Amino acid sequence: MSAKPAQPSSGLPTVTMIGGGQLARMTHQAAIALGQCLRVLAGSESEPAAAVSADVVLGSHDDLDDLLRAAEGAVALTFDHEGVPLEHLRALEERGVAVRPPSAALQFAQDKMRMRVRLGELGLPIPDFADLSGERAAARDALIAFGEAHDWQVVLKAVTGGYDGRGVWLISGSAEEALTVFDARYDDSVLMAEQKVAMKRELSALIARSPHGQGAAWPVVETVQRKGQCAVVLAPAPGLDAETAQRAQQMALGLADELGVVGNMAMELFETVDGELLVNELAMRPHNSGHWTMDGAVTSQFEQHLRAVLDYPLGETAARSDAVVMANVLGAETAPEMSVDERLHHLMARMPEAKVHLYGKSERPDRKVGHVNVVGRPGQSFDDVRERAERAAHWMSHGVWTDGWDPHAD
Amino acid sequence: MSAKPAQPSSGLPTVTMIGGGQLARMTHQAAIALGQCLRVLAGSESEPAAAVSADVVLGSHDDLDDLLRAAEGAVALTFDHEGVPLEHLRALEERGVAVRPPSAALQFAQDKMRMRVRLGELGLPIPDFADLSGERAAARDALIAFGEAHDWQVVLKAVTGGYDGRGVWLISGSAEEALTVFDARYDDSVLMAEQKVAMKRELSALIARSPHGQGAAWPVVETVQRKGQCAVVLAPAPGLDAETAQRAQQMALGLADELGVVGNMAMELFETVDGELLVNELAMRPHNSGHWTMDGAVTSQFEQHLRAVLDYPLGETAARSDAVVMANVLGAETAPEMSVDERLHHLMARMPEAKVHLYGKSERPDRKVGHVNVVGRPGQSFDDVRERAERAAHWMSHGVWTDGWDPHAD
Repeated sequence: MSAKPAQPSSGLPTVTMIGGGQLARMTHQAAIALGQCLRVLAGSESEPAAAVSADVVLGSHDDLDDLLRAAEGAVALTFDHEGVPLEHLRALEERGVAVRPPSAALQFAQDKMRMRVRLGELGLPIPDFADLSGERAAARDALIAFGEAHDWQVVLKAVTGGYDGRGVWLISGSAEEALTVFDARYDDSVLMAEQKVAMKRELSALIARSPHGQGAAWPVVETVQRKGQCAVVLAPAPGLDAETAQRAQQMALGLADELGVVGNMAMELFETVDGELLVNELAMRPHNSGHWTMDGAVTSQFEQHLRAVLDYPLGETAARSDAVVMANVLGAETAPEMSVDERLHHLMARMPEAKVHLYGKSERPDRKVGHVNVVGRPGQSFDDVRERAERAAHWMSHGVWTDGWDPHAD
Repeated sequence: MSAKPAQPSSGLPTVTMIGGGQLARMTHQAAIALGQCLRVLAGSESEPAAAVSADVVLGSHDDLDDLLRAAEGAVALTFDHEGVPLEHLRALEERGVAVRPPSAALQFAQDKMRMRVRLGELGLPIPDFADLSGERAAARDALIAFGEAHDWQVVLKAVTGGYDGRGVWLISGSAEEALTVFDARYDDSVLMAEQKVAMKRELSALIARSPHGQGAAWPVVETVQRKGQCAVVLAPAPGLDAETAQRAQQMALGLADELGVVGNMAMELFETVDGELLVNELAMRPHNSGHWTMDGAVTSQFEQHLRAVLDYPLGETAARSDAVVMANVLGAETAPEMSVDERLHHLMARMPEAKVHLYGKSERPDRKVGHVNVVGRPGQSFDDVRERAERAAHWMSHGVWTDGWDPHAD
């Protein structure tokens, strides 16, 4: 439970990750291969990463003293979420902690408004947006003007703190609906409005960048969102032409360079119906859209994130197959009759090729408690790989086999 | 440090592994994906597995009380070495601990003489051997008769406790050499003699078996031994005809069934110059000849061992490539000038596709401190994959680039 020296007997460094969630848990797996033990700052010993690492500092990411304790003797400090207050990040940097990504970059992942302004300055394609951070009356007027300009096909977003669909409200043509959300949320959250894009699908360009400036991009993937959160990832994005894929990678690599990102960066994109790419969100950490890399790429996103924050040279990002599908295991509305252990048992019997990753979390509705990767064999169709991954994840979530993915349903 | 309940909040089981070495370390990585935390019984907190797991019981595998403490609340108890006294295994079983593999099977992996007698009874092909466990004079006479019958092309072995070349003495035609070893070792070790086989190469057939009786075999591999220990593994064994490979797998699966093995079993084999297979050694745990599966097979040997000891259905064992090479990183005679961290840095720069696994151990001559896997790309030659893996491991061991593997040198 106490902080260990930065260079243990193995002569290899210690990295601290702030947050004890599943991203830290899976980063610890990768750290083990590199001869390390990931140190995690966690709120309790039962958090997903704290339950498996030998080097846990209990405390809060909101408390500077806890952050300093966790950083002590580590060669780098990184994150499994965006929740550390910016002033704490700066205080850590002032005391010489290698904060990676640095606060100067991370501020853009923490604040959607700041991010959009910066993306606009850099000339990256983004949906139209409106700043609703002003006084209530002025902000309400700004929303009305923006909504009318876009036939109320808009999205309201909390500028900070949202994730997995929280802090995002989709509005479908109704001024009243938009203003109701605005009125209910204005006091609690700084809000912004964004044009709802006529899109074909969502993509994610995941890259890593080292302090040295080396960049590496995995194949661009398609992400399937359900109930506002990532449910399925198709890697590489089926049918995406090479030119568009490369453009997305270049946008992500170039932006990471401009912002001075260190570690992984996921650039979530809309592919519009007329083939354009628009930047939607940024994350500067391992990301759900990269879980497929654990089994489907030469270098997993978790190993790569560690390599980047340690300024090690980056690993090869090639996919191991032409078809890799990741499907999240989500807590069900109604708890399945079978225990998770029994469900796992049945899944293994039915699909010996399914790679299951469970986070050690209790099940609550729509909570991400694990994921399944299926890596296609040579010649196996993308639809078949997807059907198997979705069926596996659905089974693990619900304890029901019948509702797999139907390739003709989408 | 204290034993946790068998069913943590995640609802998934706890497995205890006796021994805190690299096999337990890598099993812990696999346990994390299955929603578990491996509990390890280790001699100190700095042992490879103890340094990375949140659930460590400090104690000795020679002490029944320590074993009982480690087993408390776990659903199964398994091993990263063969060193637990047989009487302790039986005592654990009498108290209801699920010892996997059970003592009735593990006794054959612990005692080379007992193993050979049993293999003979089962009609499996083995080299000729002689029991030297009797009184000194009688044993010496038995050795002389055996040696003369085989032109002193023999191997002397300690019946128990040997590993990585320790407890094995190769004799090359000299009665004097054999008798010198015998005279020096008789008092400390129970010895046996074995015919030195005219072999083409060594193979390993790694399988897993569950209590339910399900068996699964990985592709048969070629193992390259140096200084009496495994140095390189070629997967699948190059040029091995399908019939011979299948015969090796059937021998291993059949034997595991006969002996009631639970978990992994590695059957090390000699392929003789005239194409016969002879059984050399058995191990009932994850094995060095299976490290390639971590990156090169659908299911790694560590996940499979856990699946087997938990009586989960077994995972798919197919290789992800036609050419996978594992090369051990061994401590050098002379410590390299560069630290291991610097060496790792350089390796990553040169070979972004190399998968490095470091065990967190200090370097001592010929000590296994890690391994490198290289998984061939489609179309890449086996020689090229091997050259890269060997060069990577040699660099990590010695801090010298020049002495890679020469395909024309063997």
